[in-house]
Order: sequence, then C-alpha cells, then structure tokens
Amino acid sequence: MFTGLCAFPLTPLAGDDVDETALVRLVARCVDAGVDSIGVLGSTGIYTYLLRGERRKVVEAAVDAAQGTPVVAGVGAMRTRDVLGCVEDAQAAGASGLLLAPVSYQRLSDDEVYRLYCDVSSASDLPIAVYDNPATTGFTFSDELHGRIAELPGIASIKFPPPAPGLAAERIASLRAAVPEGVSLGISGDWAAAEALLAGCDIWYSVIAGLFPKAARVIVDLAQTGQGDQASHGRLALEASAALEPVWSLFRTYGSLRVAATMAEVLGFAEAPCLPRPLQSLHGEGRSRVEEALRLSGLGA
Amino acid sequence: MFTGLCAFPLTPLAGDDVDETALVRLVARCVDAGVDSIGVLGSTGIYTYLLRGERRKVVEAAVDAAQGTPVVAGVGAMRTRDVLGCVEDAQAAGASGLLLAPVSYQRLSDDEVYRLYCDVSSASDLPIAVYDNPATTGFTFSDELHGRIAELPGIASIKFPPPAPGLAAERIASLRAAVPEGVSLGISGDWAAAEALLAGCDIWYSVIAGLFPKAARVIVDLAQTGQGDQASHGRLALEASAALEPVWSLFRTYGSLRVAATMAEVLGFAEAPCLPRPLQSLHGEGRSRVEEALRLSGLGA
Repeated sequence: MFTGLCAFPLTPLAGDDVDETALVRLVARCVDAGVDSIGVLGSTGIYTYLLRGERRKVVEAAVDAAQGTPVVAGVGAMRTRDVLGCVEDAQAAGASGLLLAPVSYQRLSDDEVYRLYCDVSSASDLPIAVYDNPATTGFTFSDELHGRIAELPGIASIKFPPPAPGLAAERIASLRAAVPEGVSLGISGDWAAAEALLAGCDIWYSVIAGLFPKAARVIVDLAQTGQGDQASHGRLALEASAALEPVWSLFRTYGSLRVAATMAEVLGFAEAPCLPRPLQSLHGEGRSRVEEALRLSGLGA
Repeated sequence: MFTGLCAFPLTPLAGDDVDETALVRLVARCVDAGVDSIGVLGSTGIYTYLLRGERRKVVEAAVDAAQGTPVVAGVGAMRTRDVLGCVEDAQAAGASGLLLAPVSYQRLSDDEVYRLYCDVSSASDLPIAVYDNPATTGFTFSDELHGRIAELPGIASIKFPPPAPGLAAERIASLRAAVPEGVSLGISGDWAAAEALLAGCDIWYSVIAGLFPKAARVIVDLAQTGQGDQASHGRLALEASAALEPVWSLFRTYGSLRVAATMAEVLGFAEAPCLPRPLQSLHGEGRSRVEEALRLSGLGA
C-alpha cells in the first residue's frame, strides 16, 4: 500500500469545528485524480490539534469519501495511551494503514521511541508508516533506530524528511541498508520528491497532492517510469517539479501547512480561517505571494 | 504572588490514572515547608500528557491540599481553544495564577504566540506567568516579544530558562530592560537558581522543591537576604546549591522530569512507574546514579 502517491489533505475547520463538507470535497478530488492512498491526520491534517473524537470523525468521513482508495490515518499523540485510542478508532473507522510520529513535549530517548513503536505494533494488525519529522517532533532518528523499529511486525514504511538537493540517492541508500527488504521508503518535503522518486523512493507523502492531486500524479508517473529505460521521463519529472518552485519556495519559508491552508482559502476549498488558533494562515505579503505562486505555477487555473 | 519559591510537584500516575493521594502528599510537603506558591501542571506536572478532565482534577486536588498557599496552574496546550478550556477550569478550581507556554507542533511565529497571549489575557483575570521553555516548545522568545507580551493585562511574570553559568546577571538585566516594571522574573533550571536569585531574580520556579521543599527554601532565603547587606548569606546560598550538584548534574543529563520521577519512586512518594508512557523513569545505571545522588546530596535522608 505504501507506494506511489499518498495525498495529504488538510483538515479544514469552520469556526472551531472540523468542516467535514470541505474535507470530503478534498478527499474526492484525490480519488478522482487516482492517488494511490490518502493520508488523513498528517501534519497537514492538523492531527495534534484535534481531540480524539474529532480525529475519529475525520477518519470515518475520509474512508467513506475515499470509495476504496486506501486511507492512512495519523495516530501520533503525546501519550501512548492516547495513541492507542487513536489506533483503535482508526481501525474501527476502516483505515488501511497508520502513520505514527514520536510526538513529544519532553524530548524522547531512543528507547522510549522504540517502545512506543513496540506498543503500537502489538496493538494493531494495520501496516504502520514511521513518521520521521524532526522539525515538528524534535526527535531525530538514527538509521540504527530506524532499522530496529523496522524489524517490528507491521512496520511497512518510513516517511523521511527532505535531504538537501543532490543528496537523495545517498540518503535512500543509507536507509535501505538499515531496514529489512520490503519496507518502503517515502519522501516528504514536496520540493525534494521528484529527485527522491528518481533515486528509487517508493512513495511520495505529498502535501500538494492534497490540493492538486493531478499535478502530483504527473510527477510520480514520470519519475517512476523515468527510473527504467525511459530516462527522458525522469527529466520531465524534474521539470514538472521545477515548475512548482514558486510553491516549494513558500513551503520552505512559511511551512507547508500555512501555505496549503492559505491556498485552500484563496481557492474556496475551505472557509477562512481554516486553521486552528494559534496557527494562522498567511495574510498581507504572505497571502499575496501565495496568490502569485498559484498564478506562476499554473496551479490556480 | 510570583516571588520567592514556587514548587512544582510531579503529577504521579498509578497505572493510567492520576494518583491523587500521592499528589496531595507532595502538595502537603510543600505547604509544610512554607513555599510561597505551588505550580501544578508544569513540565514536571506532565500537563501536556493529561486530558482536560484529568488536569481539572489535579488543580482541584492541589487547591484543596494547599490550604491557602497560592496554586499556579499550567494551562498550555497545542490549540488555543483547549488552552482557554484549561483556563476556565483552573479559575473555577480556585487557582491563583496561570502558567502558559506556547506549546507547539508546528513551530509558531512571533505573531501567533503574541495572539495566543492576547487571547488568554482577555479571557481571564488571573495573573499569568509566561513560560519560556525552548527545549520543550521549540519556540524561542526574543526580548522584544517578551516586552510586547508583558504589556498585556494580567502578564505578571516570566519563567525563563537557565543562562550559562556566570551569565544570570546579564540575562536578567536584558529582560528587565525589555519588560514593564513590576513584571517578576523567575528562573527555571534548578542548577542556575542560586546565582540568578543573587543577581536579583524575583522567584525560583523549582523542580526540586516539589520533592524537597525545605532544601529549596533554605537556598531562596539565603539568596534573597544575601542580596543586601548580608553578603555572607549569598555565599551560603551558592554553597547550599553546590551541595546539590550531584542532583543538578543528573537533571542536565536525563532531564529533570525523569530524575524527579525516579526519586519519587525510589523514596516511595509515588508508585513505579509514575510517568506516562512513552516517558520512562530511569532504570539500570540511571537509577543507581539517582540513588547515589540522593545519598551524596543528603536529600534522601
């Protein structure tokens, strides 16, 4: 399941509540574009800002709207007890996979993180993607720890953060050497996706695909055929990604969540404001830059 | 209220539940030792690991056990909505003050943090301490932002992280220049407290005082009289703190929460394990070092 394109839609709010109508609309766009899976309650899906009951409803609504496209649900939380509650809910709601980051307030030790994955691995039969995101969790995985966790039953993928330009192949080789065969490697950080897919990454965990799944689908298809005898496809994948550089640049400056939320507001996919306070979508100059980026990249058309 | 010694007791768990009996025992120790205030649901009180209802019960139990000693309640949460819920509960439970950190998953902007404090300032009449803890929140306050926030109604104190040895006076001078007169400055990072109090800090936000309030009381009393004509008291304050260096060293190595929890387990103040998974108290070598530190510092007697 953890191959190809996984689209991460926003969980838009209307007031303090999840806007299920807007969420379902985003999920339907992903299904129509033929994404391979839909990741709800990722960082883009504001999982850590929602209560357990809100998260359960998001998974239920997404599974219903996904019409058979597999739904991966983020189950991270500060406390193992609460993670396990979300696992139970995601499973009951029909999720096909789990995404788990070691969310922390106190910085966690390697052993604490390992035991967290042990606890979730033994609590569920669903395949689990390890979510490695030091920018939000403050936790840095070593390859050695990735290797130990990937040996656990059910660990099926690693979602890793964007390497610096030119370093994707090296990063992937080093992870491949650390984890058992069959564990898929997935890139996050949309600007790094084309290079990582060409270097043999199995899946793109994509923020932009939550809003513009067709644009992301094109890049994945070109990159994955471009690995073999169709080298020209590889160049086209890189060009298609380069055309979105105005968006990638904003992702790096403001964080992809704020930019995606602002795009959704600008394009009428969500009400404004659609983020939970204290988070804010962009205003003033930032919002103008988002509008300009949509124009320059052709995404707003 | 934000002067002198504020003791931060653990919120011990028994199984998955808050051990109210153990909590009340810790609060009573603080009251008996004459602390100036009791800070529940600080980092040591595992606030981010508890649900709203659990947090409400902790404040209620602490206020009841505090017998008039002011209780400051931590109200930080990822989402402003949930912060405001905790503020309402803390106020209803009889807390005398609030402690608010900009808890985050997505790194917050200065403007987002400022608006968070605006929202809480206008929602409550209780005095608020700004909790500046980049190690757990990932957010770094500039002095300029501290200054702007401290102008808001109700902002009464800043709990700031430990400066490097020898730099407390400079740090305090720089904060004093940034904030309005009357806003108290409070040191956290127990090993830095004696120096900071001697340099004119108004309050020690103390982890060790949650377990050993008398030892902390001695340091505060010596340091605060040592600022004036009794210079010898200042030296005694530094010596009393230096005697606890075996403990401070462990705080810096393992984090004060894990060390305090292990001490509580070793001394029978709490059941083992008293921390919420994935957090673990220390085992093996770490636990032996805690036992040794208790012996060396005379705290275990």
